[in-house]
This record gives sequence, C-alpha cells and structure tokens, in this order.
Amino acid sequence: MKPVNVGICGLGTVGRGTYQVLTRNAKEIARRAGREIRISHIGMRKPNLEFDFTGVEINTDIFAIAKDPKVDIVVELIGGCETAFDLVMVAIEHGKHVVTANKALIAEHGNEIFEAAQKKGVMVEFEAAVAGGIPIIKAIREGLTANRIDWLAGIINGTGNFILSEMRDKGRSFIDVLAEAQEKGYAEADPTFDVEGIDAAHKLTILASIAFGIPLQFDKVYTEGISHISAQDVTFAEELGYRIKHLGIARRTKAGVELRVHPALIPESRLLANVNGVMNAVMVHGDAIGPTLYYGSGAGAEPTASAVVADIVDLVRTLTIDPDHRVPHLAFQPNCLSDMPILSMDEVNTSYYLRLEVLDQPGVMANIARILSELDISMEAILQKEPQVKGSEVAIILLTRQVQENQMNKAIAAIEALDSTLGEVVRIRVESLEG
Amino acid sequence: MKPVNVGICGLGTVGRGTYQVLTRNAKEIARRAGREIRISHIGMRKPNLEFDFTGVEINTDIFAIAKDPKVDIVVELIGGCETAFDLVMVAIEHGKHVVTANKALIAEHGNEIFEAAQKKGVMVEFEAAVAGGIPIIKAIREGLTANRIDWLAGIINGTGNFILSEMRDKGRSFIDVLAEAQEKGYAEADPTFDVEGIDAAHKLTILASIAFGIPLQFDKVYTEGISHISAQDVTFAEELGYRIKHLGIARRTKAGVELRVHPALIPESRLLANVNGVMNAVMVHGDAIGPTLYYGSGAGAEPTASAVVADIVDLVRTLTIDPDHRVPHLAFQPNCLSDMPILSMDEVNTSYYLRLEVLDQPGVMANIARILSELDISMEAILQKEPQVKGSEVAIILLTRQVQENQMNKAIAAIEALDSTLGEVVRIRVESLEG
Repeated sequence: MKPVNVGICGLGTVGRGTYQVLTRNAKEIARRAGREIRISHIGMRKPNLEFDFTGVEINTDIFAIAKDPKVDIVVELIGGCETAFDLVMVAIEHGKHVVTANKALIAEHGNEIFEAAQKKGVMVEFEAAVAGGIPIIKAIREGLTANRIDWLAGIINGTGNFILSEMRDKGRSFIDVLAEAQEKGYAEADPTFDVEGIDAAHKLTILASIAFGIPLQFDKVYTEGISHISAQDVTFAEELGYRIKHLGIARRTKAGVELRVHPALIPESRLLANVNGVMNAVMVHGDAIGPTLYYGSGAGAEPTASAVVADIVDLVRTLTIDPDHRVPHLAFQPNCLSDMPILSMDEVNTSYYLRLEVLDQPGVMANIARILSELDISMEAILQKEPQVKGSEVAIILLTRQVQENQMNKAIAAIEALDSTLGEVVRIRVESLEG
Repeated sequence: MKPVNVGICGLGTVGRGTYQVLTRNAKEIARRAGREIRISHIGMRKPNLEFDFTGVEINTDIFAIAKDPKVDIVVELIGGCETAFDLVMVAIEHGKHVVTANKALIAEHGNEIFEAAQKKGVMVEFEAAVAGGIPIIKAIREGLTANRIDWLAGIINGTGNFILSEMRDKGRSFIDVLAEAQEKGYAEADPTFDVEGIDAAHKLTILASIAFGIPLQFDKVYTEGISHISAQDVTFAEELGYRIKHLGIARRTKAGVELRVHPALIPESRLLANVNGVMNAVMVHGDAIGPTLYYGSGAGAEPTASAVVADIVDLVRTLTIDPDHRVPHLAFQPNCLSDMPILSMDEVNTSYYLRLEVLDQPGVMANIARILSELDISMEAILQKEPQVKGSEVAIILLTRQVQENQMNKAIAAIEALDSTLGEVVRIRVESLEG
C-alpha cells in the first residue's frame, strides 16, 4: 500500500518529539499500521538544522501545507487559538484529516471545528490534548463505550502536581517550589495558566464532553488554582490522613453535570493520592466497570508525540471506513449530544476542610458548632492546635460531611463574622473518590 | 442504519453481565456506536427465567447461532478450550466476527484462530480476556502504537492479589485467606488455576504478543504461584520497604523476551504496590511515553461485560472498513510478527530476596558472603533476626542486586550445602519497576 503523507505544522517541543518518534520507530509503527507513515512536509517559521530533512518538503507557509494535495494528514502543533484555528479550518476545508495536541483550541473552539469536520467528512483527532501520552481519550471514547460514565477525576496538570508533591515531601512553600519549577522548565515564566487551573479546565472540558456526550463548554468550568495552598494546610491534611491534589472533576448528578477544577484533600490510600511529581492520572468511574485509573506522563516532547502518532495511525486506519462508522469526535454521535445543564459551583455537593484562626477563649468552638448545626452541616473531624502563647490565637481544622456549597458559603460567612474569628476561613474541598 | 445482530453463546456470569449491560445501556451505547446493537440470539443449555427474552431467539445449539445468516457478531462466553474452539472456528468459517472473553482459548489457540480469521476476512476480538474491563488490549494495541514497548508488568489475577493483600493487611496465612476467598466466591474450589499462576500466564502470553509483535507462546512462560509465600516473608518484605505482589512480567532484552509469572517484592512507593484486593493493574513502559499504568476490575460480570461490549462496538465500526486497514489481532500485521527468542528463566536478570534459617554460630555470615561474592552477586541489604534462644537457629534475609538467575541458582545450591544452613532457601524475586 502506498505511504501516508503527513504534514507537521510547527516544530516546537512536541513537533520535534513527533518527528523523532516517527523516524526512530518508523519500522515498528509500519509493522502495526500496515503501511508506511511518511513525514512528507514540515511547516516552520525558522530553519531547523537539528535534523536531516532529506526527502521532506520544508515550508515557512503552514497554510500551503494545509492545502497541498499531496498531504493526507495535517498535524497542528503550533499552539495558541488564532493561527491554529485558521490552519485547522483550512485543512478541513481542503479535505484533510487533522491531528492536534492543542487543548485550548479544542476546549474553546472544538464544537465549531468538529461541525466543520463532520460536514466535510474528515476527522480531527486530539488524544495529545489531554494528559499527554496517556491514551485517556481512547479509553473513554472506545474502551468504556459500554458504560454510563458516572464521574471522572484527574490530576491533569503536571506543573501543579509537581508543586504540590514538593510542598508535601519537603515542607516547602508554594512560592519557593514554583521558583524551582520555573528554573527546571516545568513551569512557564508566567505560571498562571498552570497554577490557576486554566490548563486543567481546558482538559476537563474535553474529558467531560466525551464522557457524558455533552457539547464542549469551557466557559462553564469552575476554576480555582493552588496558589493559595499553604505549607500548613498540606501538613494538617497529612495529619488527618489526606493529601492535597489539584483535581479536575466531572460528575453526572440528577440535577446536571458538575465541572470543576480545584485543590482537594483525598484519602492517602487512594491511588490518585500517590501520583507524584509531574505525572498525570485520571480516574474514570463507569456503571458497568466501576472505578478505573489511567496513569502516565502528561507532558513532554515524546510522551505527547506518542499520542500524536497514535492519532495518526488511527486516522490511517479510518481512511477507508464509511464515515458513519467512525468513532465520533466527542464519543457520541453529533446528533445525539445531550443538553444536560452544567451546575454552578453553588449547587455542587462535597465535603470540606476548613482552617480558621480564632482567639483562644471559651465558647469559640460552641459558636462555630452552632453555626454549622443550624445550616445542617455535620462534622467528621476536628483538629485543634495548641496556641503558641496561652490566650493568643489558635488554629482550628474542621472536616465536614457532604453539603451543598451554597450552604457552606453561608456557614463560612457566619463564622468569619464572629468576633472570635481572625481573618478569612481557608476552605479546601474533600473528595473521597469512592465507588 | 439497520441494527447489528449479536448472538451471545453462553449465559454464565459474563453472559448475563453482557446481557444486562447491553440492555440497560442500550440507548447510551447506540448514541456512541451510531446504530442499534441488538441481542438477536442467545445460546444456552438450560432455559434461563431470570430475564425477559422477548424478541430474542433462544437456542440450545450454539453452533446453530454461529451458522445463522441473521447473526452479524458471535460472542463466545462458554469458556474452556474445546467446544469454545470449535464454536469460534465455525463462526469464522461462516464469516462472522467474533468476540470472546476466553483467555485460555486465545493464549493456547490464538495463533490458529487468528490465521483462520485473517483468511476469512473477519475479526476475533478479546479485550475481556485480559484484566477484565480495563481497556489494556486497546491501550497497548492502539494507544501506544507509536512506541517500542520495553516492558510490562501487571497484577493480572484478582484472586491472587486478594490473598496477598489480606496476608499483608491482617498478618494471615496463605491457607487461611484462601479458605475465605473460596467462601466469598473469589477463588474456585480448585484454586490451582489462580494461585499457581496459570491464569496469569494466559493473560501475560496475550499481553506480550501484542506488546512485542511475537506469536502467542503460552508454553514458554515461566510460571510460579504464590502458595509458598509465608506470612513471615510478607512481614520481612514490609520491614525492608517492599510489598509482595504476584506479577506477570514481559520484558524485551537484547538476548530475547522474558516471559514470567511469579511473586515479587516491589518498592512500597510504586503504584503497583498499592493495588489491593481483587483489583488488577498493568504497567506498560514504552520508549516514547515512558511508564504508564492501567487500573480497574479484572473480573466480575459487568466489568468483563464492559470489555465484551466495547469489542462489539469496535466490530460494528470496522464493518465497512477495508480489511487491510483494521487493527491487527496481535497489534502487528500478521506478516510482520517477529521471531525474537523467549528466554528461559535461567537467562533472566533480576534482583532477589533470600530468606534462610541458619545455625546461630560464628562464621556463618562470612561463608554466605563468600559464596555470593565468588559468584559476583552483590548484596543490597541484610536483615538478621535475633535468635529466640541464644545459639539456636536464626533467620537471615538478604536483598541482592541484579544477577542472572542461573548464577543465583548456583549460589542457593551452595548456601543450602553449608552445614550451617537449615532446610531450603526461600527465594522471591525483586522488581524495582523503574523507568
């Protein structure tokens, strides 16, 4: 069979990784795919002298590649949402299948892109957009296809997980570890995207869509970062048998779908609690299979390339398939998407870790207990720290049972209004991740 | 599009699970597959009154189902290797696609079955044969297709993992926990298949084949069970920072492929060390992606059905695909399988935990150290237990660095020949599961 021609647009980290994997493992991949996969075109702004590009057509105009009749599959690896969007749309218009690693592009413009692809009869694949090399899109979209997915929860940002792991292991502060992560290249100079949860929210948007069969709705994700997590909270969590992780959670409830990214305490015995450093992992719970977990590298040149190349091989395999028989972009057929409402954070039910500084005087705990009880909030555990100086301020840590966030907001406001409460109440959600 | 007709042969645990999942989630599945998947035929020996089979053709002759022109996909869930083999071959002969959950059948007769299927242009799918519902076949065969797989290691027998988990958690003996597992239905009346590693060897055979592109070679798997693991070894392992797990390991080395099932100490910080109870998990290491892990239920009616149904949907999707473009049975194209040799256990390199009882007298340790040193075996740690009575026997635990099993066999023989050594040396392999 004749080789499949792939045009790679963008030769940054992932582009170079894809080039390396496709050339190094060319034989192994052809043994699996049944035909040769050839990098026929590369689009890049500046000439790259790192590799020997003999036989590859180099072009500084990526749009020329997207239009070139010799190209079968266009691989978008330039990043960002503007030129990347235009490139993908031009490629679709010219009847090309597309592979992208661009989570922002899919989360924010996927609905439009997939509609265009559907009309044109081509596929846009995006395994590399979520959790790097872990085949999580394939697992949910195809592997768990028999299941009604109940919920999923994942550590889907390596930078954030590296920071939280270091804070726990070495008792270091957020700022301190962030500086190291920036030095090591795990975090960008402007770390907002990673540490404030935007990157995780992009990925969660995609996961929720393929899990529940709902359109991509990035603007409805509740997003909270980890920059306010203190070394103290990490230690207190530890004392209570928990670890703090930055999670993306999507859950189907009777009222609608929860979509939220925030730090959470999880019991230390859970596998997710033991996913450390820059690694990613996603738990997916289906009604037939129960809990499952997928773990691996969530970023980096070759792990991401692993997913890009898997998508290319999948596309090669669908080249002759009747379009109606393809795996749908969002797991469910486009005319079968559901309009389940996305819940606001106020409507979400979860448990809480609260940390507050109070005056060390009689009656303080009684007042707090009364507020919680009046709002129907049950306590699971209380940890009261000895004051440094008798009669000065003291830290109280509370673990609550499940309650609607709405109620918890009222409780926190009432507790903060007490004269005995100093400053703001620290609130971190608790996820048991049980069956 | 017209519905796809599925004939289920065998209505035992997995058959009933498949019936339940396909009927309960019919709408969800059709939303994904793009067409209705209909159980049109069920073959079973005895009538089942548990379900309402309106609209389903019931037949006590499963071969009639395999030959029925109205059936598109035959699902073999009768188990065993004899009738099941005949059934699958008849179905193939009649141009049916087949789904099976039968690990013994695939591991022992897969080469012949796939050859027949290839000739006839049909597919035989077997996701449910390994690790129940975990989409591990799909992950390796498609998700990691870009990678040269270096090694994989898995907890792929739930019964064995339940026994080892209980032994560790409660300090119980193997015999004691086995009896409980039999009561709970986790273990068969004759537990040989599970606890002696035969079931795991079947699964490992399949995993190794799709990972490395080699034919199925069940007869070449080194297989050692867990019935000789004592509560004492579990405790000593714990003291050294390890847990004992029953692993299936396949590794590509320059000399050939290691295929082995045996108990092993693994560092307690590894995710695999924290997979407990009846759960399964498989680590797969690829050259591009690095380490990955897949976790979930390895058995049970609905988890297994989850995989069976995923296979059915995959088959529905390939119905119109050009046969040359399908995912090959063993991940690699049939004419691209490799004849890499399978190593004997003697040729395998690994580290060891050794436990021996010796007389509490001077010079004993020196003799042992001399034997190891002469065979070029380095020690990583020594744990010497205090004797109960001064001058009586004493337990010594040794952890060694990597060495060829051949050398270790010589060392053990020499140590056992010492007058000061009482009885046999207990040997458990140690796997670091590193990068």
